[in-house]
Amino acid sequence: MPNNLPVTQFETRQNRLISAIQVAGLDALALNAGPTLTYLTGLHFHLSERPVIALFSPGNRPALFLPELEGRKVEGLPFALDAFPYGEDPLEWAQGLSGAIKTLKLDSQKIGVEPRRFRVLELRLLETAIPSAQIQSAEDCVARLRMHKDQAELANMRQAIAVAQKALNNTLPSIKIGRTERQIASELTMQLLSNGSDSEIPFAPIIASGPNSANPHAVPTDRQLQSGDLLIVDWGASVNEYISDLTRTFVLGEPERELSQIARIVLEANAAARQQAKPGIPASQLDQAAREVIEKAGYGEFFTHRTGHGLGMDSHEEPYIRAGNSLLLAPGMTFTIEPGIYLPGRGGVRIEDNLVITDSGSETLSDFHRELVSIQTI
Amino acid sequence: MPNNLPVTQFETRQNRLISAIQVAGLDALALNAGPTLTYLTGLHFHLSERPVIALFSPGNRPALFLPELEGRKVEGLPFALDAFPYGEDPLEWAQGLSGAIKTLKLDSQKIGVEPRRFRVLELRLLETAIPSAQIQSAEDCVARLRMHKDQAELANMRQAIAVAQKALNNTLPSIKIGRTERQIASELTMQLLSNGSDSEIPFAPIIASGPNSANPHAVPTDRQLQSGDLLIVDWGASVNEYISDLTRTFVLGEPERELSQIARIVLEANAAARQQAKPGIPASQLDQAAREVIEKAGYGEFFTHRTGHGLGMDSHEEPYIRAGNSLLLAPGMTFTIEPGIYLPGRGGVRIEDNLVITDSGSETLSDFHRELVSIQTI
Repeated sequence: MPNNLPVTQFETRQNRLISAIQVAGLDALALNAGPTLTYLTGLHFHLSERPVIALFSPGNRPALFLPELEGRKVEGLPFALDAFPYGEDPLEWAQGLSGAIKTLKLDSQKIGVEPRRFRVLELRLLETAIPSAQIQSAEDCVARLRMHKDQAELANMRQAIAVAQKALNNTLPSIKIGRTERQIASELTMQLLSNGSDSEIPFAPIIASGPNSANPHAVPTDRQLQSGDLLIVDWGASVNEYISDLTRTFVLGEPERELSQIARIVLEANAAARQQAKPGIPASQLDQAAREVIEKAGYGEFFTHRTGHGLGMDSHEEPYIRAGNSLLLAPGMTFTIEPGIYLPGRGGVRIEDNLVITDSGSETLSDFHRELVSIQTI
Repeated sequence: MPNNLPVTQFETRQNRLISAIQVAGLDALALNAGPTLTYLTGLHFHLSERPVIALFSPGNRPALFLPELEGRKVEGLPFALDAFPYGEDPLEWAQGLSGAIKTLKLDSQKIGVEPRRFRVLELRLLETAIPSAQIQSAEDCVARLRMHKDQAELANMRQAIAVAQKALNNTLPSIKIGRTERQIASELTMQLLSNGSDSEIPFAPIIASGPNSANPHAVPTDRQLQSGDLLIVDWGASVNEYISDLTRTFVLGEPERELSQIARIVLEANAAARQQAKPGIPASQLDQAAREVIEKAGYGEFFTHRTGHGLGMDSHEEPYIRAGNSLLLAPGMTFTIEPGIYLPGRGGVRIEDNLVITDSGSETLSDFHRELVSIQTI
């Protein structure tokens, strides 16, 4: 009896999605390769020149338009899915997708997409297949679906944090005067992998030293570490595709007095935001808590980014911890708290932790020491 | 005297782009974060929820719409650029981009984008900023610009191949019965980094064993290697953002007779395609050369993908080596040759090399041994 079959995790998620798109007034959701597709189906595709488009709509099985050579991935799935494989000639793709669309009876309807993931490549194919469709953002709808992590998801994130922390610990001995940012980034990446990260790490570590640490999104360079440098390490691991994203700041030898001072202020800002985290308050309140500490200390203009972002299968997702975000925090939401102060030409400090909202408050999942630790230079 | 200033590499490339977009009948090119932007400016941004949009148009300096916190990246560039930084509130982005657009006088014009890279996020911002613009594909125009590699680019690719080959050599001792695909993928990744790959490797290695090797786009699993398994290793390094992309196939102990046989056929197909490579012939001819060998041997239906793809700053770019691609090969083009035979449930073989077209023929840049090598199991 079909009704007695256990509903798989993916079917549960798909059913929640279908309800969510109906509430959002959409007739279907079109996804390309990415974490949301993985979340809903367990299938993993890379973004490439060969498009993958999955369509979810009420009353239909999920439909998947995919390259023929990826066809084996859909064998043995624990739920029903209609696959529409296509060949190597791009001129035939639009027709192939139209075929998929016909079985779903999706003409002249509202179709949601993820604007941060869906490309012009997939959009134009979809527009050609359904000329009268209204294609609009389903960002909120998808964000709400994925924002609340269950225990299995949290277990993966905890493990990703443990792997990252162990990897940094093992990398510390190789941080020395004269080593380059790139060398440290490579060592840390190797440690992430050998300590159990997925072989696809979520992002390349940021290793930013001296004046480079004043750039929040620095890329590791061949700059050699020097005495007195601040050193920002922003790194993460991935376990079963769930991500950790942490930052710590070190100093090579003795810091200038003002650099020690900004480190203390950032530490206080980080603690202030974490202390506020609990269900029912708007995300903006955590940003405000961190920002107030830094502004009161007179460094407001040097805290040039939001306080944090959600974290899960994406390294940046809802809830964004920024001014103006009225989203109310709720149990199961996971995010970063990462205030920073950046003094152009001199150096920067950022301290980033990963948190989960619990029923009564929040738990900080990362516990690597946060104080400005001096790396001995002698 | 400005005219006596040395024209930088990036300005040369930008000038070539401007000519190319004029020939293509476009008024401007809009790029988001990615290799083409790096190629033209040396600037590196990650795709994220914060859009980056660069606009190139005749008679204007390049305009760059970017997050405030990435603003320092544009300091000290070796060419003129107008930067339009924006803050953390997404509601203000459209207006910010409109400001950038106004300085360029780009209303009601044809604007090219890269469909495989440009997202709905950037597209909708652009459409809002220039409601009357016609936004269309500039794929060919950009492909032609980047397809012909100069000596400096080739030197990076050669180095990326050397790094990859050394990394695999160092990984071979750890390939043993009982090791998992994931373990080997991690070891190989560590070897890529310790042998000099950029800390952001171009793609996670594919390690596919036994029946998994019959899936051309397999993802490493926890499957343990067994005696008699075919083992496909598809891996690459990146040096100064230029990529290598190679594949070799091994066998654990003694292969079944038919598996040895398909390995010989794929080797022959690989050689046939490489022998054909020279200036003036269509890309499709190389595909045909490889395919004919496999079809004559009776395995045509098991060669389920094109024979290769271009390679450079992207791991997949023009020229695509596939049936129907009439693009004529020309000196400086770099691409893969990677025929394969995949027997569902049993195993697959793929042999992938990287080539460059020379003035008189071609050079195979990779030289790791191609024969089916048995990894001793005792």
